[in-house]
Amino acid sequence: MWPAVTNESREQSVDEAPKAKRLILGDPLASTDTDEHLLPKKMALPIFASDALSSVAYAPQELLLILLTGGLAFLAFAPWIAAAVVVLLTVVVISYRQLIKAYPSGGGDYEVARKNLGEIPGVVVASALAVDYALTVAVSVASGVDNIISALPGLNPFRVELAVGFVILIVVMNLRGVREASRAFAIPTYVFIGSVGVMIVVGLFQVVMGNPPVASSAQYAVETQDLTQAAVILLVLRAFSSGCSALTGVEAVSNGVPAFRTPKVRNAQTTLALMGGIAILLFSGLTAIALVAGVHYAENPCDLIGFDCANPQPSLMAQVSSAVFGMNSVPFFVIQGATAVVLLLAANTAFNGFPLLGSVLARDGYAPKALNTRGDRLVYSNGMIILGLVAIGVLIVYQANLTNLIQLYIIGVFVSFTLGQIGMIRHWRRGLSAIRDLPADERSSKAVRTELFGLRKGLFINSLGATMTASVLIIVTVTKFTHGAWLIFLAIPVLSFLMIGVHRYYRDVDHEIAMDDQTHFGSTGDVALILVNKLQKPVVKAVDYALAAKHDKTFAVHISVTKEEAAALEAEWSAHRMPIPLKIIESPYRTYASPIAEFVKKYREQHGSAVVTVYLPQYIVGHWWESLLHNRRARRIAQQLMLVHGVSITLVPWLLDSSELIYGRRSRALPGDDRAGRPAAPEVHRVGRRAIRPAGPPERSDAAEPSVPATKP
Amino acid sequence: MWPAVTNESREQSVDEAPKAKRLILGDPLASTDTDEHLLPKKMALPIFASDALSSVAYAPQELLLILLTGGLAFLAFAPWIAAAVVVLLTVVVISYRQLIKAYPSGGGDYEVARKNLGEIPGVVVASALAVDYALTVAVSVASGVDNIISALPGLNPFRVELAVGFVILIVVMNLRGVREASRAFAIPTYVFIGSVGVMIVVGLFQVVMGNPPVASSAQYAVETQDLTQAAVILLVLRAFSSGCSALTGVEAVSNGVPAFRTPKVRNAQTTLALMGGIAILLFSGLTAIALVAGVHYAENPCDLIGFDCANPQPSLMAQVSSAVFGMNSVPFFVIQGATAVVLLLAANTAFNGFPLLGSVLARDGYAPKALNTRGDRLVYSNGMIILGLVAIGVLIVYQANLTNLIQLYIIGVFVSFTLGQIGMIRHWRRGLSAIRDLPADERSSKAVRTELFGLRKGLFINSLGATMTASVLIIVTVTKFTHGAWLIFLAIPVLSFLMIGVHRYYRDVDHEIAMDDQTHFGSTGDVALILVNKLQKPVVKAVDYALAAKHDKTFAVHISVTKEEAAALEAEWSAHRMPIPLKIIESPYRTYASPIAEFVKKYREQHGSAVVTVYLPQYIVGHWWESLLHNRRARRIAQQLMLVHGVSITLVPWLLDSSELIYGRRSRALPGDDRAGRPAAPEVHRVGRRAIRPAGPPERSDAAEPSVPATKP
Repeated sequence: MWPAVTNESREQSVDEAPKAKRLILGDPLASTDTDEHLLPKKMALPIFASDALSSVAYAPQELLLILLTGGLAFLAFAPWIAAAVVVLLTVVVISYRQLIKAYPSGGGDYEVARKNLGEIPGVVVASALAVDYALTVAVSVASGVDNIISALPGLNPFRVELAVGFVILIVVMNLRGVREASRAFAIPTYVFIGSVGVMIVVGLFQVVMGNPPVASSAQYAVETQDLTQAAVILLVLRAFSSGCSALTGVEAVSNGVPAFRTPKVRNAQTTLALMGGIAILLFSGLTAIALVAGVHYAENPCDLIGFDCANPQPSLMAQVSSAVFGMNSVPFFVIQGATAVVLLLAANTAFNGFPLLGSVLARDGYAPKALNTRGDRLVYSNGMIILGLVAIGVLIVYQANLTNLIQLYIIGVFVSFTLGQIGMIRHWRRGLSAIRDLPADERSSKAVRTELFGLRKGLFINSLGATMTASVLIIVTVTKFTHGAWLIFLAIPVLSFLMIGVHRYYRDVDHEIAMDDQTHFGSTGDVALILVNKLQKPVVKAVDYALAAKHDKTFAVHISVTKEEAAALEAEWSAHRMPIPLKIIESPYRTYASPIAEFVKKYREQHGSAVVTVYLPQYIVGHWWESLLHNRRARRIAQQLMLVHGVSITLVPWLLDSSELIYGRRSRALPGDDRAGRPAAPEVHRVGRRAIRPAGPPERSDAAEPSVPATKP
Repeated sequence: MWPAVTNESREQSVDEAPKAKRLILGDPLASTDTDEHLLPKKMALPIFASDALSSVAYAPQELLLILLTGGLAFLAFAPWIAAAVVVLLTVVVISYRQLIKAYPSGGGDYEVARKNLGEIPGVVVASALAVDYALTVAVSVASGVDNIISALPGLNPFRVELAVGFVILIVVMNLRGVREASRAFAIPTYVFIGSVGVMIVVGLFQVVMGNPPVASSAQYAVETQDLTQAAVILLVLRAFSSGCSALTGVEAVSNGVPAFRTPKVRNAQTTLALMGGIAILLFSGLTAIALVAGVHYAENPCDLIGFDCANPQPSLMAQVSSAVFGMNSVPFFVIQGATAVVLLLAANTAFNGFPLLGSVLARDGYAPKALNTRGDRLVYSNGMIILGLVAIGVLIVYQANLTNLIQLYIIGVFVSFTLGQIGMIRHWRRGLSAIRDLPADERSSKAVRTELFGLRKGLFINSLGATMTASVLIIVTVTKFTHGAWLIFLAIPVLSFLMIGVHRYYRDVDHEIAMDDQTHFGSTGDVALILVNKLQKPVVKAVDYALAAKHDKTFAVHISVTKEEAAALEAEWSAHRMPIPLKIIESPYRTYASPIAEFVKKYREQHGSAVVTVYLPQYIVGHWWESLLHNRRARRIAQQLMLVHGVSITLVPWLLDSSELIYGRRSRALPGDDRAGRPAAPEVHRVGRRAIRPAGPPERSDAAEPSVPATKP
């Protein structure tokens, strides 16, 4: 839109101002590093962990599910596969601790890949992440709904509707502005960790006591298929890659380092380690008890012999918790509830991560600059809505079927893992070669040696990480490609091309407008035209401003479509003794811009290359719909005059009474602020008005600025 | 959007300019009254008649259809009902000739009702007309598709798809810009009149020769129901009101008077009479032959005993033409084709009438002023799209079923008819009372007596018209209300309330900004801030302009988010020896507007109420998507600074190379121009570039305006 103020911009106009005020009044809060705004570990954990931890809610289930397609016998592989996943998880966590140390700015895999591997890999990682955010929403919501239905099977017919509903809910919450760091978001994560932890302990205790839990589905068999050895291997690998979904979300911390309290790196690393440890415990514990309890979970419920597949299969989490605590017991509902909420929170995290990614990309010129304009709620809103729509689309197409969605999910995750890790290898290599170039004596110094050790350690860890994630990526690709993952291999390149295109565009424009000392404009003399339709206060204000600017010549111009209007205006003009001459330009065709354009051109032909400043009154309104009723003509005139050589447009704002609505708004949190370690926008009520109280004496501003509350009767 | 130029505005910027050029060079075309642009009767007839004439394609069918629901015996009523319709049509035509004479400005019923009956009736008429436009599209397209299917029954399964497809086609045509007055639009109407006329003559001739045509459906009986007398009367009335659909479109001429050549009124009246005559001939002829040929057309095909109602019923037009010329004969296809095309043209007329209504309403302040901004293609486009969507919605909801749509259609038509006629009565009455107030001697003068006669005549005619249309309105309401017409009685009030709301809003704003001599602004002194992000040509141009404007103080301002950027900029600034001081304002929170706002306020507090002019470079781009990549931050800064007291925003345009696309576009016709008697936009190619060729010497403009083709290498 044209400056005609939109809600979004208005809010910003008020909730930014106080910061600037503090800033100028030297308020202690001014420094961005003040811990006030930053996350203590106990808050950071839930914020960054909900994504990673929630994935243990579906990983074991998907692991067993794939194995069971081969028959019960295959469950024998489960512990080994789970072990492999745990090892992988450990390695990835350790690798990311290295990454955090090396790149504490929060760019994560994208930054690493771009700085070490170059543009294309960086863009690919960015695209992969963007895709992941959409799928995180889809998968988490699908799994959350799955767990809700497991507790309340009556809702089964509404699976897709529920999922879509939750996405919409999350989008709306984010549009309304939620503070991710609020305590409310921390509780469920801790409840989840706690309750699932207790369940695992109790379950194991029962095993020790000799009365192991028995899952409701233990009784159901599945037909064993005799598979070729190749098929067996493939099946095992597929199970493994589904299990790898436990790793999703681990990277979150590496993107949020700036949000941690100092010492940032150490705190982030600790949180990551903590998160990894918890994830491993929950994942292995759940898998173990599921196996002990004999949870049988089939890709297609009807494959379970004896199971009435009209009903939904209870999720693995539900089966385990009911086996341990008894069906429909209180703890059962607590666990199901916590699981569902955590999964929805994980979906919510995507809505915070997405804008951050966008702003990082915008900063590097791979996404519209608008995404880097902090506090441009309009931009964020559009981002939210797009993200939400994509997620909803995916959920509908895949009927909120978790197993199918997982197929898509893991690819993107491991693409970024792998490229990130490879990037890190380069990073360490560079460090090593740098040392190798040192003169021998320096090289032997203690400092260098310790550094050398650190570099070698990093290199080793990340090489390990790279090898493993790469091989998993290959496995995942091979095993999932035909199961829908091809879609991702379509989406990532498309996004990458778009980003590169944007980058090229910015590069070309920058080149086009690059500074050079050959460019001389040397405009001389200036004229002010004030466009007058009717003689009303906004025009008077414009005239006043134009006079204050003391242009060489200042005169009012009226485009006359009917002689009557023109005559009436001229009469009024003299009646009110307006201080500048009024020029009437006839326009029988009811065109406005071009007569002025012609006038300007002829004027410049006669008087040389004068700059012509065209004054246009600009209404500031309070309701979005008001802007539909204003300014179109002024806008079109401006649009067209801007094509005329030597013209500049001056907008003289006129605040209508309704624009009072601009104040008295509460500020809203911007998505991603918490993870970016930015302070929350302060309350508006108190300071909002001050922020734009006019400096002029009351009686003047009363006339000139009817919208200023301070000066209203 | 913000001035970042949109395609629409660009076209205008070029296709308006040449007119202004002519205007200034005193080109003979300049006067709007030149007949060049205006419609000769032979073009006016097809343009305004397609709506009215096309309705005879469905009116007789709907008339018989309703009668047949009572049984074959009821066909005996048909001639009498048809006669009644003809009488009504005659009266309405004569009444409208009076209306045209009294109100030649083209406001039609709306203007009459508003001027004579006041605001509410005027708004009601306007709403009724708006609704009609949507239904004209729906009904005409539905009937057109019906006639196509009658010729090519294989298309029957795609009835709705076809209808929707045609609407989309028409919308696209209008978005692309069609000249309604082009000969191509006249031909089908004349073919329709001619071919149907020939058919009637041939048919009557066959009757005289004793071998009357026999319709394919003559063999099919329908069960006779024995109805109460009341039911019989109701049925006859329903048939009559369906027949009245023949009147739709008669008002079109009264809205298009300005488009006629002088003598406008006489020409319009003649055209109207001509149109009425043709309509009557076609309507009665068609009905007569249909009765002779024994066309049996049932509301529900399965009511036709013996008819395999899996197939579609051929339209009455199709049955008559095949009865006269033989099924699938060449004339048959000619007639079906012409009928279909004329009906689609009738739909098209709505897309030309709608913007006109909009601009009249906007002129009176009942619709957004934007609708009255001539040549704002963006506005028209939105109007087209809305109109199209509504029509599509109606077509889908009613499954393109003509009979159901007719129910809705006639109400709106007769609402405007009736209110228009009543308005005319008031009009004449006023004239009479004026004469009554004259002194006796004058009253006896010849001139007055002839005037008196004219007034009495008008009064009589319109009273007759009012009575008849009013009674028809009552009949239609009574007989159609339960058949879906209630929807209209919902839509019209809603629209009316909206229009009144808009009017109230404009009134309040006008009052708020009304001129008074108490308002004094008296700003003194002026400062120019040039916002600098990077030192690039657009900034240099802005600096140049600011210097040309010789402000009291001029300095550049950079909002520094990172110290590095600021330092780099300062270095460049001095390196390039920029002529004005650069001020760095720190903004650790990455906010831009508010630091400036604060700065401005503090400045004004120290230096008194100076006007602060903030210079913002403004990119002009060539592709719509480019505007997504530009200007957001500048826009938000402008939006927020406009809330600060004493600030005005100066946009310094910078034309990017891509903005060359602005030229070399062909101009497009604007919908409604022909009917409003406006000239078409001329070719752009030749003059478009000239229109914005800069005045400055080449080498300068080469540097300053890279986009000017004339100065490109």
